[in-house]
Amino acid sequence: MCELLGMSANVPTDICFSFAGLMQRGGGTGPHRDGWGIAFYEGKGARCFHDPNPSVDSKIANLIKDHPIKSHVVISHIRQANVGDVCLENTHPFQRELWGLIWTYAHNGQLNARLFDKPLRFYQPVGNTDSEYAFCWLLGELRAAFPVRPDDFTPVSEFIHARCEELRELGVFNMLLSESQHLMAYCSTKLAWITRRAPFGEASLSDCDITVDFVKETTPNDVVTVIATEPLTQDETWTRLAPGEMATFVEGLPV
Amino acid sequence: MCELLGMSANVPTDICFSFAGLMQRGGGTGPHRDGWGIAFYEGKGARCFHDPNPSVDSKIANLIKDHPIKSHVVISHIRQANVGDVCLENTHPFQRELWGLIWTYAHNGQLNARLFDKPLRFYQPVGNTDSEYAFCWLLGELRAAFPVRPDDFTPVSEFIHARCEELRELGVFNMLLSESQHLMAYCSTKLAWITRRAPFGEASLSDCDITVDFVKETTPNDVVTVIATEPLTQDETWTRLAPGEMATFVEGLPV
Repeated sequence: MCELLGMSANVPTDICFSFAGLMQRGGGTGPHRDGWGIAFYEGKGARCFHDPNPSVDSKIANLIKDHPIKSHVVISHIRQANVGDVCLENTHPFQRELWGLIWTYAHNGQLNARLFDKPLRFYQPVGNTDSEYAFCWLLGELRAAFPVRPDDFTPVSEFIHARCEELRELGVFNMLLSESQHLMAYCSTKLAWITRRAPFGEASLSDCDITVDFVKETTPNDVVTVIATEPLTQDETWTRLAPGEMATFVEGLPV
Repeated sequence: MCELLGMSANVPTDICFSFAGLMQRGGGTGPHRDGWGIAFYEGKGARCFHDPNPSVDSKIANLIKDHPIKSHVVISHIRQANVGDVCLENTHPFQRELWGLIWTYAHNGQLNARLFDKPLRFYQPVGNTDSEYAFCWLLGELRAAFPVRPDDFTPVSEFIHARCEELRELGVFNMLLSESQHLMAYCSTKLAWITRRAPFGEASLSDCDITVDFVKETTPNDVVTVIATEPLTQDETWTRLAPGEMATFVEGLPV
């Protein structure tokens, strides 16, 4: 199993604190030694870093941990390989373009072989994971249903939710997905989120000895939601999504 | 105008030496202060770094310069904005997936407004540059002509060459393009390449005071071609492409 981490914020925010916790699970406190990746949206652009090496050793991961990249939507993934080789093209998050937007996706779980019976319409996987195949299928279905970007996003998220329900029938499918503005989190077995806003307090990571005082790191108007497969802090109350539930966040708030 | 840098090699090779020269043109010896990007293929996967900040100041650029990432195909670009804002989504190289392969593209030059009369079939630009529009058009045409990847690449490169000739009628169009195996270099006004192989010698960068002894950096079987808008070294003989010429390299050699 893998770890997912997502962030949605109303102002460009760095994810150093949460990423420091997640990274420990990449070979430190966790068994996820088969690569990691992270995508940061900046406007409609996305900066994406992938490394098939364990995150705890990675120089690029250290750069991200120490050099704050501010973003309004972040999706990150630490991988423990089950299906597919350990190589760059199998490293999440995966990206494809639809409607002139970069869609970014990361998956936690495993889907059975019946997944590969689902026909692909537009997008082909580069690697050989179930995760990327599911993404190509999902986005191809979305493209077929909505060839042009609709003004209202609600039918889009409902369509995606219904396709996620289909995928859940094939195994474990916890997912983070974004097109730069909306961050969608679909829960098959585990996903938890927390929204931080004024008055800010302190929080301590569960996985290593780091405490942050968000008052010093934020302004009173900041609203930041963090989503992870397991809560990352030990002194805050996280909301767990129920199996089959999808939450969508815009500018740090659920919609 | 912008600077292009490409590499094709028969063994995973780092591009630190050439990148060090190119970076100097990003705000150092050159006027290209509007961002830079680089893509490294590793198998079918591609690692891509983008930064809208000048390369000479960029921490990520320093990481790449100092931390050798070995790759068999590299495409890099330093941008001086002419069309489009300075922002992440307008930063080359651009990428799209076709046939389960990641296509990477960078452009030097400027195309006139008639470009935007060309209809897009499958791919939509994320940003607002002429460069990305031309890429979306080119790859859409290729996809329409070859819905399935042909066994023989020759008709593909001929098709791409013909489309590049069309684009050259609209302005200046120097281009680097790859799908992980082939590196295509199309010359509209300037592109030069050099193949380095045994017996290796020394070379000195034109843009800064760095000399490398390739004997120490290579094995006798290495074959590495470097392509750039202007020759990067002062003591080697580069081959200049003629206007309208396209060269394709595989594993370090022209095909």
